[in-house]
Amino acid sequence: MTLTEQTCPIATRYGEALAGTAAPTPVIESLLAHRSVRNFLPQPLSAGTVELLVAAASSAPTSSNLQVWSVVAVQDAATRAKLAELAGGQKHIAEAPLCFLWIADLSRTETILQAEGTGTEALDHTEAFLLASVDAMLAAQNALVAAESLGLGTVYIGGLRNHPAELAELIGLPKRAYVVAGLVVGHPDPSVATAVKPRLPQDAVLHHERYNADQADAVARHDAATLTFRAEQGLSPQPWTALLKGRLGSLKGLSGRHVLRSTLEGLGFGFR
Amino acid sequence: MTLTEQTCPIATRYGEALAGTAAPTPVIESLLAHRSVRNFLPQPLSAGTVELLVAAASSAPTSSNLQVWSVVAVQDAATRAKLAELAGGQKHIAEAPLCFLWIADLSRTETILQAEGTGTEALDHTEAFLLASVDAMLAAQNALVAAESLGLGTVYIGGLRNHPAELAELIGLPKRAYVVAGLVVGHPDPSVATAVKPRLPQDAVLHHERYNADQADAVARHDAATLTFRAEQGLSPQPWTALLKGRLGSLKGLSGRHVLRSTLEGLGFGFR
Repeated sequence: MTLTEQTCPIATRYGEALAGTAAPTPVIESLLAHRSVRNFLPQPLSAGTVELLVAAASSAPTSSNLQVWSVVAVQDAATRAKLAELAGGQKHIAEAPLCFLWIADLSRTETILQAEGTGTEALDHTEAFLLASVDAMLAAQNALVAAESLGLGTVYIGGLRNHPAELAELIGLPKRAYVVAGLVVGHPDPSVATAVKPRLPQDAVLHHERYNADQADAVARHDAATLTFRAEQGLSPQPWTALLKGRLGSLKGLSGRHVLRSTLEGLGFGFR
Repeated sequence: MTLTEQTCPIATRYGEALAGTAAPTPVIESLLAHRSVRNFLPQPLSAGTVELLVAAASSAPTSSNLQVWSVVAVQDAATRAKLAELAGGQKHIAEAPLCFLWIADLSRTETILQAEGTGTEALDHTEAFLLASVDAMLAAQNALVAAESLGLGTVYIGGLRNHPAELAELIGLPKRAYVVAGLVVGHPDPSVATAVKPRLPQDAVLHHERYNADQADAVARHDAATLTFRAEQGLSPQPWTALLKGRLGSLKGLSGRHVLRSTLEGLGFGFR
């Protein structure tokens, strides 16, 4: 932890100073300190941790109280090893004691609507897909914030969207349900340092009253902050825009997810 | 606040006891206490609050660090009145001092990719739409948690998806950007009581190792808990499953969002 981080968590977050913010609460200090953790001790979680984290998740807002999400808590070592493989070889999934799988779940809704004798055509629409995906991730984010407050480390696993159908089969998902992302939870390995990664300055992401497309200066500063951060971490000198190019500049960067829609249609989602 | 809520926030959250959870941290207590607020004082926010909340939002995880989101902070009274109207007459948007509009933003990415001279075809895929929508809402949820820790009240406004194109025009969004949801922030009116709304029991939403479709008992208990809650709040006796039926049992319940995909295509999103 650098002196900057100790004295101003907001400057650390942006890789540059930000004047005039109100004073953070302890909860906000916890949010500002977020960093992803990919090195875990084998130590198991305390009893009741999964249930506590899910109570936090259940407390997140849900669109119109529809609650179109579920979560599968995977603690079995063989299943975690399989998840690590499906996500493209992410060993931390196998090493940490828990991987939550956050599910956009229209299956429960369909079962209830069918019992009520109403139609289910609304579920075939892009809006329903979006509702369920967002509901799942609002719940997930609350669980992440809760876990970090317990001193646990976390990292989201979007790579599980590389193989949604295989994953659905592995955990026995019904029709109209898919895993939006995983969330690995465990005790961080204290011998491996982690750091707060800089984000785009507020003049790129925060707009007042109307959207401001003039972001070139902020993006250039973020490239510089990213280079500084990566040098401090002993990483190769890659500016942020190069990362963007690698990930979204070609279909190859999508790691197989260019077929996501047809795969999700196969799992019962519609995009009307 | 009932005696139950004072003594066990988790039982209040579920409308029934849940045995054996680990002890909550103060951060988790804050998450468990979430309730939506729809009655606000006209009192403005303290200086620097918007920037502090956005610093919390910027601290949320973002898929592969792509940061495909933005936020427009609307404080202008005339614009808030227009937003209230677009959302179907939600007066709290006009009454509270601030409405954040959380934007799935592939526009910045497109500008950068074009400058780098690479293709933009990945942006036309459902995966990119999902990435951006989720990124925006993870940031939003951090801002919500941060706001509540400051004693502010909040409520998400999904109703802004009823008219995405009009909204995009109102705030000058470029191609490949849309508002996933609004978030109203303000000082709660202390003369109007709010309450923690019960959620589906954990045996409906939390699954161990594999998905368990046997949720009928949990859903029935949730219907009962919802009826108890609504009676306590002086609301009409509507079980949760009836709400689900009203909202997702027909296309009418989507309030115009059955055309979301074609509207978003008009705003530059693709669903390949």
